[in-house]
Amino acid sequence: MSVDIRTEIEKANVKLSESLKKGDSAAAASLYTRDAILLPPNMGKVQGREAVKEFWGGAIAQLGLKDAVLKVEELTGSGDTYTEVGSYVMKLQAKGQEPTEDRGKYVVVWKHTDDGWKLHRDIWNSDLQPT
Amino acid sequence: MSVDIRTEIEKANVKLSESLKKGDSAAAASLYTRDAILLPPNMGKVQGREAVKEFWGGAIAQLGLKDAVLKVEELTGSGDTYTEVGSYVMKLQAKGQEPTEDRGKYVVVWKHTDDGWKLHRDIWNSDLQPT
Repeated sequence: MSVDIRTEIEKANVKLSESLKKGDSAAAASLYTRDAILLPPNMGKVQGREAVKEFWGGAIAQLGLKDAVLKVEELTGSGDTYTEVGSYVMKLQAKGQEPTEDRGKYVVVWKHTDDGWKLHRDIWNSDLQPT
Repeated sequence: MSVDIRTEIEKANVKLSESLKKGDSAAAASLYTRDAILLPPNMGKVQGREAVKEFWGGAIAQLGLKDAVLKVEELTGSGDTYTEVGSYVMKLQAKGQEPTEDRGKYVVVWKHTDDGWKLHRDIWNSDLQPT
């Protein structure tokens, strides 16, 4: 695998982290393909960039998502499609609640587009028991 | 993509379903690579075929896993690595409990080995709220 691809994907992950940290769901959604699908825990699929924007907007507004640190652990693939296995730490603080932290793992299918590498499929789950 | 690869992966999924239905965790684990990693919800990673066997054995014994129907929705990749996005329905009946059903989605990274296509990375989560 080209070192450049790993670097580009790591950069895109940093942009996603920064967008979520800033509470900018439109910027977060712009890192996904137009026909992206999120596969979030405890709900159905979220299809398309507009729905991805609403999902992250909801996570920011309702769950109080403050930060998401993403770590690439494995990257395999070729051509315009790579699959990443990674781990995350999310910081959350819903209104009037104590801050909490969620830790877990994810798999992202990345697609190369005219606008660079974008998240195309994104599934994750928590290491922690539901509270 | 070769039609054969999709067919082979679908067949491996059917074998996994059948192994779980029979309560045969060793047969289920044999469908994974030796260095497979499961990424199950609400716990840490499960690494290696022996640990995969223990995981499925625990799911059968403790959660009362009775059946897992797997449906390939997308398959992308090339060479010896393909990534599948799919959906599942699991039937569960823990001792002394009513039968329940879990529905969700998964991503599997498949690796071609000397012994055919094997699950190499396997992450999933439920569509349902935790009970």
